[in-house]
Amino acid sequence: MPPDYNDILAASERLSGHAVATPVLESPDLNDLIGGRLLVKAEMLQLTGSFKFRGAFNKLSQLTEKERKSGVVAYSSGNHAQGVAAAAKMLGIPAVIVMPADAPAMKIANTRAYGAKVVLYDRWTESREAIGGRIAEERGSVLVKPFDDPDIIAGQGTSGLELARQAKALGAGLDAVLVPVSGGGLVAGVALAVKAEFPKAEIYGVEPEGFDDLRRSLEAGQRVANDGQSRSFCDALMAPMPGEITFPIHQRFLSGGLAVSDAEVSQAMKLAFERLKLVVEPGGAVALAAVLNGRIDCRGRTIAVICSGGNVDSATFARAIAG
Amino acid sequence: MPPDYNDILAASERLSGHAVATPVLESPDLNDLIGGRLLVKAEMLQLTGSFKFRGAFNKLSQLTEKERKSGVVAYSSGNHAQGVAAAAKMLGIPAVIVMPADAPAMKIANTRAYGAKVVLYDRWTESREAIGGRIAEERGSVLVKPFDDPDIIAGQGTSGLELARQAKALGAGLDAVLVPVSGGGLVAGVALAVKAEFPKAEIYGVEPEGFDDLRRSLEAGQRVANDGQSRSFCDALMAPMPGEITFPIHQRFLSGGLAVSDAEVSQAMKLAFERLKLVVEPGGAVALAAVLNGRIDCRGRTIAVICSGGNVDSATFARAIAG
Repeated sequence: MPPDYNDILAASERLSGHAVATPVLESPDLNDLIGGRLLVKAEMLQLTGSFKFRGAFNKLSQLTEKERKSGVVAYSSGNHAQGVAAAAKMLGIPAVIVMPADAPAMKIANTRAYGAKVVLYDRWTESREAIGGRIAEERGSVLVKPFDDPDIIAGQGTSGLELARQAKALGAGLDAVLVPVSGGGLVAGVALAVKAEFPKAEIYGVEPEGFDDLRRSLEAGQRVANDGQSRSFCDALMAPMPGEITFPIHQRFLSGGLAVSDAEVSQAMKLAFERLKLVVEPGGAVALAAVLNGRIDCRGRTIAVICSGGNVDSATFARAIAG
Repeated sequence: MPPDYNDILAASERLSGHAVATPVLESPDLNDLIGGRLLVKAEMLQLTGSFKFRGAFNKLSQLTEKERKSGVVAYSSGNHAQGVAAAAKMLGIPAVIVMPADAPAMKIANTRAYGAKVVLYDRWTESREAIGGRIAEERGSVLVKPFDDPDIIAGQGTSGLELARQAKALGAGLDAVLVPVSGGGLVAGVALAVKAEFPKAEIYGVEPEGFDDLRRSLEAGQRVANDGQSRSFCDALMAPMPGEITFPIHQRFLSGGLAVSDAEVSQAMKLAFERLKLVVEPGGAVALAAVLNGRIDCRGRTIAVICSGGNVDSATFARAIAG
């Protein structure tokens, strides 16, 4: 069963007192720059430095006592890894995480610091799904998928629920919401929540160029994969195609997909450093980059972007802000 | 007349809807590190990237129509400059700002971008007070002092008022509050507000080594100046001595002064980048540095620090986070 708005309300109850209600921030300078009002949902301020904690905690907190004892397994380029590891630690559940060997060092170190066992694989020649599935079978563990799971989608959607409520508290409408996309769990959950509160809001998924499988899938009317050859420094947004559960939600609620270049993302990270004083990782900055580079018309409108994470190595961040 | 708690409540009313109610953030990792609970008041998320907007807006919004027409003059190493320039722009008041020629390029550029006229001077050979006073006389403008003014102190105190209320909303007490100090306007206002809400809370002012005039003044029982020879990369914290109005407040309410080295500040900026995903400038990170380096006992206690600003050039920030 795909998740619906009520599942997000239930997830919000579960997360209350455990997750951070991340702030919505804005900058007069950025408002001037886009000629409208820009609301920035600061998900890098969530526990573990990204929204991923939301879905992970929503999933893990619903496991049975027996399932908790057998532990969980997850595969992730880094943010889901940290989210699952931290939620597992809080709930006393053993966790094994399968991560690409070339993931940012900070993400691997943090996942280990939360007490999870990390298994590394080669992103370009091995299948994380196969490795994760095998470990889950051997241990009798629950496999916690990064996006194609109703409980994960509902958990990520709590970010959109908060955003909608925060926009109302600011007296702002929401004309459009732009959300970073890897497998599309976050944008699916955010769309479910925001559309319930602001039915006319346009929702866009944003991806790095060469990883714009959601954009092309929406245009094709069916799930299509990336070419497997492209490269981007947006390490968090490399899922090969939209999920089976997420894609029908995308088809129903999204106005479209947008793609941005690494150079545009780098510039967005620099502006977030200068104007918002926030650390945004490459994959977390794609929606902001789309707005700053005119991918949609912002004039006189209120646009929200989710800046989805801030787990970036210092060298990568230093290069981006040097501009 | 020195300001009191009621002046802070009045300032809070004036700022409502104009200033950001900055969030209080915490990190489980930093809590583990100090063995207590650490609340971080994120003042770099205030308009203009520092708390200084609070005092400036509180002051400027109370000027008469005649005073507004004659404009305002301020001297500042950069954050008060931006605060006054932005508040003046919002209120339609002409502003001239006297800034040191070696202030961070970002601070000078931002002050100009807010529409203020910037006059540069040599920090080591010229007197900013003399230059500012002369310009004010020539133009018939109001001189907006950076700290030694009851309206400025009351405005900065709204940060402490918010902190106290946010701590209560979190169900937390406040055992100690550490605040960056230049001339001591922020720590004076914060002390007035926090002591009214948490009478037993200890308040500490934190300064860079070599600029610890408040620490030495508290010990001497009278205002003493810095040696004028020391150097620090905490460009925002270089006032020569506590103010005439601020120091009696310090004497009445502070438990003491603390000093930290540039190396300790740099490490605190790195930890804020890694664990909080916040951009903190050197002067904004001294209170966090004091806590992380064990200047006070944190074990089992709830400690709040104000991270007072985030206006730092990219090269300086890159050096700090490289560690």
